[in-house]
Amino acid sequence: MKGKNEITHDLVNPDFSVRHASQLQLQDFLLGLKNSDRYILGRAITLLESKIPDKRSLAMNLLSRLPVVEGTVRIGITGSPGVGKSTFIDSFGSFLVAQGCRPAVLAIDPSSTKNKGSILGDKTRMLSLASSEKAFVRPSPSSSSLGGTADMTREAISLCEAAGFNYILIETVGVGQSEIEVSRMTDLNIVLLQPGAGDEIQGIKRGIMEVADLFVVNKADGIQLALAERTRQMYGQAAHFFLHELQGWQSPVHLVSSLEKIGLEDIKQSIDSYVRLSSESSYFELKRKTQLKYWFQKQVAQEIQEQAFKQPKIKSTFENLTRTLDDGKISIYSATNQMQKLIQEIFL
Amino acid sequence: MKGKNEITHDLVNPDFSVRHASQLQLQDFLLGLKNSDRYILGRAITLLESKIPDKRSLAMNLLSRLPVVEGTVRIGITGSPGVGKSTFIDSFGSFLVAQGCRPAVLAIDPSSTKNKGSILGDKTRMLSLASSEKAFVRPSPSSSSLGGTADMTREAISLCEAAGFNYILIETVGVGQSEIEVSRMTDLNIVLLQPGAGDEIQGIKRGIMEVADLFVVNKADGIQLALAERTRQMYGQAAHFFLHELQGWQSPVHLVSSLEKIGLEDIKQSIDSYVRLSSESSYFELKRKTQLKYWFQKQVAQEIQEQAFKQPKIKSTFENLTRTLDDGKISIYSATNQMQKLIQEIFL
Repeated sequence: MKGKNEITHDLVNPDFSVRHASQLQLQDFLLGLKNSDRYILGRAITLLESKIPDKRSLAMNLLSRLPVVEGTVRIGITGSPGVGKSTFIDSFGSFLVAQGCRPAVLAIDPSSTKNKGSILGDKTRMLSLASSEKAFVRPSPSSSSLGGTADMTREAISLCEAAGFNYILIETVGVGQSEIEVSRMTDLNIVLLQPGAGDEIQGIKRGIMEVADLFVVNKADGIQLALAERTRQMYGQAAHFFLHELQGWQSPVHLVSSLEKIGLEDIKQSIDSYVRLSSESSYFELKRKTQLKYWFQKQVAQEIQEQAFKQPKIKSTFENLTRTLDDGKISIYSATNQMQKLIQEIFL
Repeated sequence: MKGKNEITHDLVNPDFSVRHASQLQLQDFLLGLKNSDRYILGRAITLLESKIPDKRSLAMNLLSRLPVVEGTVRIGITGSPGVGKSTFIDSFGSFLVAQGCRPAVLAIDPSSTKNKGSILGDKTRMLSLASSEKAFVRPSPSSSSLGGTADMTREAISLCEAAGFNYILIETVGVGQSEIEVSRMTDLNIVLLQPGAGDEIQGIKRGIMEVADLFVVNKADGIQLALAERTRQMYGQAAHFFLHELQGWQSPVHLVSSLEKIGLEDIKQSIDSYVRLSSESSYFELKRKTQLKYWFQKQVAQEIQEQAFKQPKIKSTFENLTRTLDDGKISIYSATNQMQKLIQEIFL
């Protein structure tokens, strides 16, 4: 056992670790996570993102051996670009550390479908939080499909929890689909608002009440304070009229200055209240179970897809029909009909 | 042949048709579409939406027998709620009719995932256009999955074109994912803007340049005219700096008053220019082919999914594992692992 511990110790040394990163074995990962080794956690998340079959298989093996962890909270943090998500997470995460919590920050980056660019970019993020030994900040993932990224984020949550982090903050850019995907892996969601948000012609953004368990009006400082207060009142009223799925909960609206670190304690208290209320009514557990079944179904569907398109008969017929379709010699409906018959035969 | 024509004539009579709607056969549909019978077109689209296997099979049969139609333009029309899409389509569609064109209007309604409500609602829409015999207006679909609705919309386009409609207008609510799906079935997209849009803190909405081939600042009348002009200039400058995928095209920005019917001719001219330019460079044809292959792949994937989950061994193992997962007796990763092995065996 001492030998193993020595190895782990060595791995924490950056020079040594970079050299041996690709040689990490299942036991190294399991032990590293158990020891809350942030370097190993980082390598484990990288492993998830690998497309190399051996690595992917090691990742799945690792995931299936993770211990069951209780007492964690998964928090989605969303808001329009420019609302100050990174600054808020930096401040709030640091506050959590000061309170003795262990926050981990992950990001879902729904890369633009056309440009494949990263919305979150390469900018250095959350420097103060990242420097804390009690916290873990994962840089934004490189471009990838939305589905893939969401899957990996969910798996990364499991890794962070296995490594002893108990407040998992998942940052997402507010663009509809990614918000919905994130809400399928979190216990509660914080929506960040700009002072003055909702003052425009359109009023309060459609659907926002459905995803927000907690509102934060950010940048509530200096000359924007009065505007922020008006926004707080407006959303407070809207929340009052909106029936939350969790009985007895009304999404609170907090004013925060991430820069001046004001209002962070209220948020922590609201999160704790939410967790308490939803645990008492079993809503918390039920929601996690529903999410689990959703992701299981989705992963099985993906596996079926992958294997089916590799099946020789499906593969060759599909490729031939695609060519014929491209030549304009057949309609998409005839082509689909032919594929349908083949698929039905195969599954008979 | 005379007999068949008589039947078709009878079917146009509402009283008769309602009674016999469910008895319509493939030949009735084919003949009705050939005769540009709007009632039959409506019934055919309803057929697409049916979940009854026999109806669905009739729908697929009908689709695979549609004639190849050329010279149509598929136009996506998007914009935030409240921007006046219905009023615009009503005015522009009527203008197209006056120009001797035959517009058909379809809508994609990405129903809210939680409330299952219809965003477009039941409101009576486009009364003036719907009353024209040269036009076809399909009321918004009832709640359904986004994917399903998008698929059906694409199939409905084929039906409208087979029925002789040549300007297919597809309305969508501006909520990210549905815009992207619509852009995968259209030749060009019009983005409607509110006067003053882009004046807010955030500036021009992220990604909007990528989906817009044509901007329309709506409600450019009365006291809003000056504001609309400023918006036109702002988007015009942005379009100037943005490299469009179609070489030589710069998305124009038109001012329109749907109420006073001003500016509609400019839009028609821009659409025609776009079609001309993109046809000359084969971009038009290439885009349609790429779209066709995308939808074919997607439909095949859906069929695989459907058949796979019906396969007895997959079905029973999946259901058992889901139960075990729900009982907390297994991790999602172990469950996925087991399903993976089974699926791989089946496809061997």
